[in-house]
Amino acid sequence: MIKSSIIADQQDLTRFAAEILMKRGMNAEDAGAVAGALVWADMRDVGSHGVFRLPRYMAIIDKGDIDPKAKIEARLQLPAALVFEANKAFGAVAMMHAMKAACEQAKRAGVCYAIVSHTTHTGAIGYFTNWAAERGFAAIVASAGTANMAYYGATKPSLSTSPLAIAVPGGRNGPIALDMSTAILGIGRLAQAKERGETLPEGVALDDDGNPTTDPAKANLPMPLGGAKGSGLALMLECLAGLMAGTPLLAGMIAPGGKIWHSHNAIIIVMDVAQFRPVADFEKDAEELAAAIKQLPRRPGFDELMLPGERGNRAYAQSLVDGVSISPGTWSDLEKLGQKLGVTMPSRKRG
Amino acid sequence: MIKSSIIADQQDLTRFAAEILMKRGMNAEDAGAVAGALVWADMRDVGSHGVFRLPRYMAIIDKGDIDPKAKIEARLQLPAALVFEANKAFGAVAMMHAMKAACEQAKRAGVCYAIVSHTTHTGAIGYFTNWAAERGFAAIVASAGTANMAYYGATKPSLSTSPLAIAVPGGRNGPIALDMSTAILGIGRLAQAKERGETLPEGVALDDDGNPTTDPAKANLPMPLGGAKGSGLALMLECLAGLMAGTPLLAGMIAPGGKIWHSHNAIIIVMDVAQFRPVADFEKDAEELAAAIKQLPRRPGFDELMLPGERGNRAYAQSLVDGVSISPGTWSDLEKLGQKLGVTMPSRKRG
Repeated sequence: MIKSSIIADQQDLTRFAAEILMKRGMNAEDAGAVAGALVWADMRDVGSHGVFRLPRYMAIIDKGDIDPKAKIEARLQLPAALVFEANKAFGAVAMMHAMKAACEQAKRAGVCYAIVSHTTHTGAIGYFTNWAAERGFAAIVASAGTANMAYYGATKPSLSTSPLAIAVPGGRNGPIALDMSTAILGIGRLAQAKERGETLPEGVALDDDGNPTTDPAKANLPMPLGGAKGSGLALMLECLAGLMAGTPLLAGMIAPGGKIWHSHNAIIIVMDVAQFRPVADFEKDAEELAAAIKQLPRRPGFDELMLPGERGNRAYAQSLVDGVSISPGTWSDLEKLGQKLGVTMPSRKRG
Repeated sequence: MIKSSIIADQQDLTRFAAEILMKRGMNAEDAGAVAGALVWADMRDVGSHGVFRLPRYMAIIDKGDIDPKAKIEARLQLPAALVFEANKAFGAVAMMHAMKAACEQAKRAGVCYAIVSHTTHTGAIGYFTNWAAERGFAAIVASAGTANMAYYGATKPSLSTSPLAIAVPGGRNGPIALDMSTAILGIGRLAQAKERGETLPEGVALDDDGNPTTDPAKANLPMPLGGAKGSGLALMLECLAGLMAGTPLLAGMIAPGGKIWHSHNAIIIVMDVAQFRPVADFEKDAEELAAAIKQLPRRPGFDELMLPGERGNRAYAQSLVDGVSISPGTWSDLEKLGQKLGVTMPSRKRG
């Protein structure tokens, strides 16, 4: 949270985001889904995936790469697998549609593998895995989108910063929930650094000429986590999502003469825990694992060992009490957007 | 390949490894499976997972943590999921058993999620994913074993260096196949550095007191890839494997008073590509993706952009022609082992 942040009311910020989206033709339910996912990210202090994205989404709609009125179609149904054609639907709309269907299927087969083709920015994908984990499923979600990260050793966009989220029921403290990018720092984080004028660490980004840079103004191309490892993982996610569904994205974008446009494929893998063992037993083991990690001896500089998702859970709990922290730059962008589309700004609790 | 390496004949090295294992009570088929997986790793220039491990496996058998005569039992069968109790079987034996069953199940359900409980060192898990990809499956394998890596910020073994392998049919050039560790450098690589006296990079390992070290003689504890990311991924794999199967490993090992012993759980996820789309179409897309990556403009210092698995494929092809490269230290360990158990050393092609 930045000191000079503006603190917005959660409900009213969600109302604002939904109204903006409805002005672009979305129905109330779909707009609510997208707004909910954005504000969830802001509340977890992942502003890069929060309402900060709204103006960008408007630009993608303008280009024709997001269709706010898209209908999602089932394209393939196997006993334990589903493929959906999202027809350029908003990420949160297509992913929640697919996640709900995948969980239903997993109740029958134990497991379901779902692929969503041609959706758009999948956003904070931990939103989807957490939703499933809170309902007794172990869930894996990964997305494979537009070329916006450098392949290991390449100078131009050639992979997606494909995020990977995994969540399982965690008992008393809520899901144990990892949500990571295959980039060291993703696009949203680079954009935030630009907005804030923060110098970047070495080795995380390239400039438009493909040279390493720490200047946030020039850092446009994220580098993969761990070189060949993050790069390889992002490439395999393109295979597991786009190639499996028959809707590959990268090859056409990065081959000579190719053009980069906005689109995502994504995968969902869910396991119905109750069919493997009683959920209460699983949760007891999850609590024991968490407790065993928390009591480990620590290296200097570590006041506490954090579990995956724990920092976000705390920020979320704090936001529920205090309100949602929005950076001044984002707030000002939202004001312009609200003015343009005739939507009243959310009330400020502070700032 | 080290300059002073000894070059062994592939068939005869496999024969040697299998005979050693049979001296410890394994049947010929199981011994052949383990020997095949070890030599496969050596041929791909991943010596850390090759016959180098044989003396270590003997020590684990001596301790009672590997049972060379173990029978693998099916514990749960759902329409799209399987759980196996491996009863301390060798990794390659249990994993191939489960992989074959998972592929059969995926032919019916489209997808199968299999968990193997209580197996032992799963070795070069790319062996299993490649096997599936060569037969038309997209495959994910990950293992979650003994505490041998530091949790991000911790000073003692608290996670497994859980490897993750993903392979898909690749057409003309064979599978596109990632095989990575959640550590920056795994245990085998640290042991190799020790044998060779190679100074380590900064930030990859801790000594027995939990302090960072670059001295290979002191580096006993690998650090996770990307800090919280690799750490989180390894923790989630413990949840997806051990907690799902009801046989968690880490909590008991790392809680106060806990004892570290050798055991692994592992997961297998396979998709039968043909039920999603014609395999030939998938392979055509995989070839196009590979070609698009290979032609990308490169940063200085990169003579070529390598696909996941490509370096190993090349080493394998070379080994088929030249023979299998074994380091002098490993060779000498094998000589001691052969002498002790009365097994004739493999013939040398060179060195």
